[in-house]
Amino acid sequence: MNKRVITFGEIMLRLSTPGFARFTQAESFKALYAGSEANVAASLSHFGIDTAHVTRFPENDLGKTATQTLQRYGVDTRYIIYGDERMGIYFLENGSMQRPSRIVYDRFNSAFSHIKPGMIDWSEVLKDASWFHWTGITPAISQGAADVCKEAIQAAKKLNLTISGDINYRRNLWQYGKTARDIMPSLIESTNVIIAGIADMENCVGISGDTFEAACKAFKQAYPNTTKISTTLRDSVSSSHNRLTGLLWNGKELLQSQQYEMTHIVDRVGGGDAFMAGLIYGVLTSKTDTDTLEFATAASVLKHSIEGDVNTVTVDEVEQLVKGENVGKLLR
Amino acid sequence: MNKRVITFGEIMLRLSTPGFARFTQAESFKALYAGSEANVAASLSHFGIDTAHVTRFPENDLGKTATQTLQRYGVDTRYIIYGDERMGIYFLENGSMQRPSRIVYDRFNSAFSHIKPGMIDWSEVLKDASWFHWTGITPAISQGAADVCKEAIQAAKKLNLTISGDINYRRNLWQYGKTARDIMPSLIESTNVIIAGIADMENCVGISGDTFEAACKAFKQAYPNTTKISTTLRDSVSSSHNRLTGLLWNGKELLQSQQYEMTHIVDRVGGGDAFMAGLIYGVLTSKTDTDTLEFATAASVLKHSIEGDVNTVTVDEVEQLVKGENVGKLLR
Amino acid sequence: MNKRVITFGEIMLRLSTPGFARFTQAESFKALYAGSEANVAASLSHFGIDTAHVTRFPENDLGKTATQTLQRYGVDTRYIIYGDERMGIYFLENGSMQRPSRIVYDRFNSAFSHIKPGMIDWSEVLKDASWFHWTGITPAISQGAADVCKEAIQAAKKLNLTISGDINYRRNLWQYGKTARDIMPSLIESTNVIIAGIADMENCVGISGDTFEAACKAFKQAYPNTTKISTTLRDSVSSSHNRLTGLLWNGKELLQSQQYEMTHIVDRVGGGDAFMAGLIYGVLTSKTDTDTLEFATAASVLKHSIEGDVNTVTVDEVEQLVKGENVGKLLR
Amino acid sequence: MNKRVITFGEIMLRLSTPGFARFTQAESFKALYAGSEANVAASLSHFGIDTAHVTRFPENDLGKTATQTLQRYGVDTRYIIYGDERMGIYFLENGSMQRPSRIVYDRFNSAFSHIKPGMIDWSEVLKDASWFHWTGITPAISQGAADVCKEAIQAAKKLNLTISGDINYRRNLWQYGKTARDIMPSLIESTNVIIAGIADMENCVGISGDTFEAACKAFKQAYPNTTKISTTLRDSVSSSHNRLTGLLWNGKELLQSQQYEMTHIVDRVGGGDAFMAGLIYGVLTSKTDTDTLEFATAASVLKHSIEGDVNTVTVDEVEQLVKGENVGKLLR
Amino acid sequence: MNKRVITFGEIMLRLSTPGFARFTQAESFKALYAGSEANVAASLSHFGIDTAHVTRFPENDLGKTATQTLQRYGVDTRYIIYGDERMGIYFLENGSMQRPSRIVYDRFNSAFSHIKPGMIDWSEVLKDASWFHWTGITPAISQGAADVCKEAIQAAKKLNLTISGDINYRRNLWQYGKTARDIMPSLIESTNVIIAGIADMENCVGISGDTFEAACKAFKQAYPNTTKISTTLRDSVSSSHNRLTGLLWNGKELLQSQQYEMTHIVDRVGGGDAFMAGLIYGVLTSKTDTDTLEFATAASVLKHSIEGDVNTVTVDEVEQLVKGENVGKLLR
Amino acid sequence: MNKRVITFGEIMLRLSTPGFARFTQAESFKALYAGSEANVAASLSHFGIDTAHVTRFPENDLGKTATQTLQRYGVDTRYIIYGDERMGIYFLENGSMQRPSRIVYDRFNSAFSHIKPGMIDWSEVLKDASWFHWTGITPAISQGAADVCKEAIQAAKKLNLTISGDINYRRNLWQYGKTARDIMPSLIESTNVIIAGIADMENCVGISGDTFEAACKAFKQAYPNTTKISTTLRDSVSSSHNRLTGLLWNGKELLQSQQYEMTHIVDRVGGGDAFMAGLIYGVLTSKTDTDTLEFATAASVLKHSIEGDVNTVTVDEVEQLVKGENVGKLLR
Repeated sequence: MNKRVITFGEIMLRLSTPGFARFTQAESFKALYAGSEANVAASLSHFGIDTAHVTRFPENDLGKTATQTLQRYGVDTRYIIYGDERMGIYFLENGSMQRPSRIVYDRFNSAFSHIKPGMIDWSEVLKDASWFHWTGITPAISQGAADVCKEAIQAAKKLNLTISGDINYRRNLWQYGKTARDIMPSLIESTNVIIAGIADMENCVGISGDTFEAACKAFKQAYPNTTKISTTLRDSVSSSHNRLTGLLWNGKELLQSQQYEMTHIVDRVGGGDAFMAGLIYGVLTSKTDTDTLEFATAASVLKHSIEGDVNTVTVDEVEQLVKGENVGKLLR
Repeated sequence: MNKRVITFGEIMLRLSTPGFARFTQAESFKALYAGSEANVAASLSHFGIDTAHVTRFPENDLGKTATQTLQRYGVDTRYIIYGDERMGIYFLENGSMQRPSRIVYDRFNSAFSHIKPGMIDWSEVLKDASWFHWTGITPAISQGAADVCKEAIQAAKKLNLTISGDINYRRNLWQYGKTARDIMPSLIESTNVIIAGIADMENCVGISGDTFEAACKAFKQAYPNTTKISTTLRDSVSSSHNRLTGLLWNGKELLQSQQYEMTHIVDRVGGGDAFMAGLIYGVLTSKTDTDTLEFATAASVLKHSIEGDVNTVTVDEVEQLVKGENVGKLLR
Repeated sequence: MNKRVITFGEIMLRLSTPGFARFTQAESFKALYAGSEANVAASLSHFGIDTAHVTRFPENDLGKTATQTLQRYGVDTRYIIYGDERMGIYFLENGSMQRPSRIVYDRFNSAFSHIKPGMIDWSEVLKDASWFHWTGITPAISQGAADVCKEAIQAAKKLNLTISGDINYRRNLWQYGKTARDIMPSLIESTNVIIAGIADMENCVGISGDTFEAACKAFKQAYPNTTKISTTLRDSVSSSHNRLTGLLWNGKELLQSQQYEMTHIVDRVGGGDAFMAGLIYGVLTSKTDTDTLEFATAASVLKHSIEGDVNTVTVDEVEQLVKGENVGKLLR
Repeated sequence: MNKRVITFGEIMLRLSTPGFARFTQAESFKALYAGSEANVAASLSHFGIDTAHVTRFPENDLGKTATQTLQRYGVDTRYIIYGDERMGIYFLENGSMQRPSRIVYDRFNSAFSHIKPGMIDWSEVLKDASWFHWTGITPAISQGAADVCKEAIQAAKKLNLTISGDINYRRNLWQYGKTARDIMPSLIESTNVIIAGIADMENCVGISGDTFEAACKAFKQAYPNTTKISTTLRDSVSSSHNRLTGLLWNGKELLQSQQYEMTHIVDRVGGGDAFMAGLIYGVLTSKTDTDTLEFATAASVLKHSIEGDVNTVTVDEVEQLVKGENVGKLLR
Repeated sequence: MNKRVITFGEIMLRLSTPGFARFTQAESFKALYAGSEANVAASLSHFGIDTAHVTRFPENDLGKTATQTLQRYGVDTRYIIYGDERMGIYFLENGSMQRPSRIVYDRFNSAFSHIKPGMIDWSEVLKDASWFHWTGITPAISQGAADVCKEAIQAAKKLNLTISGDINYRRNLWQYGKTARDIMPSLIESTNVIIAGIADMENCVGISGDTFEAACKAFKQAYPNTTKISTTLRDSVSSSHNRLTGLLWNGKELLQSQQYEMTHIVDRVGGGDAFMAGLIYGVLTSKTDTDTLEFATAASVLKHSIEGDVNTVTVDEVEQLVKGENVGKLLR
Repeated sequence: MNKRVITFGEIMLRLSTPGFARFTQAESFKALYAGSEANVAASLSHFGIDTAHVTRFPENDLGKTATQTLQRYGVDTRYIIYGDERMGIYFLENGSMQRPSRIVYDRFNSAFSHIKPGMIDWSEVLKDASWFHWTGITPAISQGAADVCKEAIQAAKKLNLTISGDINYRRNLWQYGKTARDIMPSLIESTNVIIAGIADMENCVGISGDTFEAACKAFKQAYPNTTKISTTLRDSVSSSHNRLTGLLWNGKELLQSQQYEMTHIVDRVGGGDAFMAGLIYGVLTSKTDTDTLEFATAASVLKHSIEGDVNTVTVDEVEQLVKGENVGKLLR
């Protein structure tokens, strides 16, 4: 496969309580390094796609370990830059039964938030790539991050890359004086493949609609470079039991995947990134829209069975689930 | 909040097998210190109520650690006394699927069982309190424990405290020559808020009834100080899946809470104590009976999602579950 | 109880990933030693039956530890022989949700595969026994293993033992130049109690049938020593949720057990061996066929709640499940 | 004992790698909450002294857990205040053999660093106290922290408390525009019991000396309220093997403790705080200077045998080590 | 080897804190089942000697697990009896550096303490045996235990077995109204191989001596059946560093083994039992007294490198240490 | 740094018992993937050198995980090939005190052992490299491995790379019909930098000498391409305490490094590979022979403080140890 996907965004240290321990019970934290965009790269790498991730880390052992984590998954880390400041952190308390999971963020003043235009040589980074991926988290972090995101999108457009964006509106970010509506439109403008729910569209570009399809149509009118808009519907019966369905609007029709009953969830963080990676994989490998959506949804389901943010499944594993093969079996 | 609740009862070392290991597989035991009445105090402490627990520990490192456990939860330990003998122990094998959980008790001859009237200065202990709580486990342990329980109830009555009792009939206790029917009536007489099922009433005071409501009416007639009688209905589909409903008879009508489907149970021990704490919290803060019952039931449900005997949830968390908010979500 | 059961077969080192970790995430493996036939012996030993297992181990610390594992369960290890070569290994990745469990075998060239006729003194081994048990795995391993299996069956027949065989067709084995159809008929010929599904019968003796019952009838005609043929039907909703029903054809009618809903499965490996042990126990203790089948099925269900290959439940525990008693309770 | 000691300072989340793992190997971190001054309070609490700690935490579950940690040790947490911002963190990589231990600090912008004069009602906090303790870490954190430290010292002086200060010069702190020499003199001025090495004196107040004793004399001349200056000499043979000696200058003579050979060190962090607690305990209970120094040094040694920052030993345990009793025994 | 050794004594559940955790830090306890006499049997079993252990357990899962533990080591458990009451427990806090290890016993009222004469059929138990071993712990537990110990010794003498006794004086036991001097002489009278230090002799039979040799001579005069008296000298530099030397008086001369420097001790509990097993092995296999003593001492040293009470080393491993071979090597 | 080092050799799954557990006690194994030559590559990668490792793995999840392990360290894995067969395994029991560590190998029939000439395109692999490294383990595994090793050395020579060889004679290998003396000479012939002890030289090329220096001189005469011969002297006081000295003969003189006292060893496996990596680093970066030797020896010492086979230290860390800086400190 000759495709190469470049992702850009912050990676944080995730510290999660062991088992179902609450924060006040935690004598230790499980540690890993992850970020929405890097999760997409790592998942694509497991699908056999060539990937590189761009970010900025503190010049210390935490930054070094985060880099090694990406390398392990085969993600190219050559373009990562290092500087002062700190590694962003998030603390995760796993929910159980009706009790929700909770995240305490401690990400301000991170090395990534101090990234500035000019620090990354985007023409070098993107030179052999076919796809660039960003999310709405990045421009919400700092003016510098927003600027560099724009810089990357413009470089990608110039090189004719397909651009995907996960318009992930996070109310608690956006604390540097700008709002999503100030910043997001100019980034979305050049983006082709979009993940966004109705609320994301409302919050980021002020487009609303009675239905997802209606919102998609309005979105496309405002942002004609958009080719596909996708999202997932999640029904949370409990922390261990969710139902998941994927939606994909391709400019013509609204496709809906089969619904998955997900009981005994192991780790739901990264489920959306796994869906994004599945979507990119489908488009990159020229699957039909229907197949792409089923692939992305099944990929997301499998992610929920894996500890950590990264979907380590192969293309074969996803395709077997799409076909309903080997579900819950013991493969000898 | 100016309320203060005093609880009295034995605390044991709980040694549970790790994961779903059977006793014969256990290379280690998870250790914590808990007791029905202290669990109520600890839960109330998490609800923001001022609490103190009274007990007797052996004068050794196990007693010291148990004291530290209570202190951690903010329970006042000033009135705990120390002496010879041993810490009672219970071994817990976690059930799974259809396989039941099992407890092996090793509690005889504990420091608590050697408590004697006069050892505790109840007028000092109860002086700023508004509520006293006891359970039917205490008088079942030894004549001394029964006597001190009576001593406490009488002192509490004299000081006009509200008195609650969890009439928890345990057939395997009551080995010191007295039966529950010999001892319980005089303790129940001065008790206002009662937790008891039909079988508890039958075994402890010889009152029976075709329905819970009928039994409650007869109980009230025999024990006119009773203001509320409550209980929970538990339907055990499997060790990991129970259904829970709360009942509260308030002298006028029988209220029934919503039913909760509890799958993926983490730890059911202490579920009843969490219900009791919710009940006390509701009454103490003048909730309506309906709200009190829903609060207590939701509190009990949340306890099942937490490892250990103690319900560490806050009032907010319980009230969100009552309203069906945030169930099984990921709160960022 | 004066019954004695002799089992024969390979024992391997099982290395399973911790929790739901995938192979690529495993920083450690949980280790135990198990094999289909030895699992049957160990389960019977927990039922109070006198058992001995015969196998061949490498003369090293792995072989020694495997022997100690059997001794722990009270299985007689006197007849185990030791030699060169290696311990067979299988790596197990636990599935979760829709994601299947996976086994990577690394069992070729094991000490057991080098077993040869004459190495075991079967008349000595079987002298006080009433039952001999083998499985279709053994003759699939090597010519030597097949030969010794036949040697054992012939000796058992001569001593009038009841002989049971779990006709477990494994496509990936049978790599020494013979097929199942070359070897299995002569072993099945003298076997009385059979576990086999339709596919096993087809693959091993070329008997097919539209239904299990039809296949059983044809099987009995071809192999008149057969007294009972049994199997389980497993419906895999997910890795954590299966449904299980037992079938037993006794020459006259096809019996079917109650169906069990198994959610929150802890470990499904060894579920078939637990069924086999239950079947042997029922026949050995002269239960009716119906009771035997219910006993075997309930035993298999309970195995799924226990980590490891061995069913450590007692007869009482199985019988309580058959009666629906204590299901999912907390037994104090 | 009627003494009460108040300590003031930041508490951080300590995240240490398990065993001897390096940062790049850590799949998890052990978590605890500790700070130099709080360590002193917790150790004194184990010595039977009444203590309270004053600090500022973020209003989140990390702050709540840190509070519970102090409560567990019996330290009064009533005066702790809560606010925005974050919990300071330090990452610890345990050294081994010749390889040094390493700390990565991530403490800027903590809730404590935002403390401001007027937030703490020092007259209330100090009202029944006999001793106030601070360290040189606090004024190095922020102008606010320095101001509040001064506020506390002045209040303590007014109430005639004994004041101790651990003049712990940390080059990496002091980043808010002031130097140690700008700030420390006015804090030291009212302090009576000092822990400081030659380098600390040089860096904080510009006093130098050829020997510790010479420096002490000069220090006393400049700061006449000083009654005792103490320090420890540590000889690091390897990360697991140090030698420790205590020094105490009491205005008249320089006392030196016995030297301890510390091999098989479990955790050296908090060793200085344990020494400080021992010193305070000795002075508070009117031990001779010699006994105080031996007590403090032995306390520090024992701390090295305990995981975590807090010295959980009792007075008896320290005194036995001073006398050389029970060293390395198995006490039944 | 045709030798068979029978041991008799209590087995307790040992609950030890993980790593170097103190009791107050223990979130879990490592669990194993051990007792001085059973440790001797298990060690001899690893030396290839046929062994059986006699004891009384509670009829519950703890008793069952303890039995399985012995079976694992190949110790014959046929003669173990079961009854009411409880399993004795001891809690172990591992020392480190100068900090001593500590044991909290919780062993009163155990199933073993309720053993009574007539419960064991000693003529059956001892019928094929060549050696019987007891320790001074047993008669200290209860009158019943003392009586059964005497019953066993008398039966053993009648059958001409060699009898060994580890005269292990435990001040905290002997609480049933008799003293060691009341009971021990009649047990020692028929004992041939003795482990006792000077203090043991003084406390149990009132024999004292300026030196070990002098005491031995007096002992032999009083108890002429004595053939050998042995003990170990232990010098505790720290909890992790001891020095060990063995002494053996054979009626003619006092032999002294080489001294071992034991640093990095893993677990010292059971070191004496490993010595005893070595001694028995040496005498049983007709080693010279010098070789026996060196073997026993080296066996004891190796035990200190193994977690748990049981010395799992082989004869080869002990003999290599005696010769100084392979010490601290990496054997490929 | 523009240097690139290529290493070639087998990687095995290492399964080690946790803590100081013996094989018979292991309920789990710690798992990692390592091999002598790959350890050298990984260490050099931590020194900032560009590296690639060449090997053959089974086409399964174990092979995939091993590849990811190398990637994590930044070792280029592009040239690794995959095929049938199995992953070689070695089981490691950690020694303690006098008790030696033990390895049980299970490596025959591995995917690597089936490597054949022509499978690797050496001219492509070596094209930008400056150094090729092999060890004596490889030609001992199989004829194919020996042939490919020769193929690689010849290609490297043709491209004028420096060639290093660790002449590591392993008596238990060499089972395919050839002896070391048959094969090794032709490989050594083109090798420049040699690690070999006296016994290795004797066993592999039949050269002996009274002293290491004498043997080196004879070796150089026989193999004139040799530029340096190095080795380490290890004195095993116990499993936790070794002494290490490095030797380097440079054709003119024998250099000897400082001796290191290594107590509290964490993991000695890979110590020789760390030395080799240090040696290569020194020569590659044109250090003097003395500095190279001190660097290599200090690197090896630091490896002993790190769990796993790979030396994860940086150049700075090694150089600080050479200078005696920061030894055993706590670096803040």
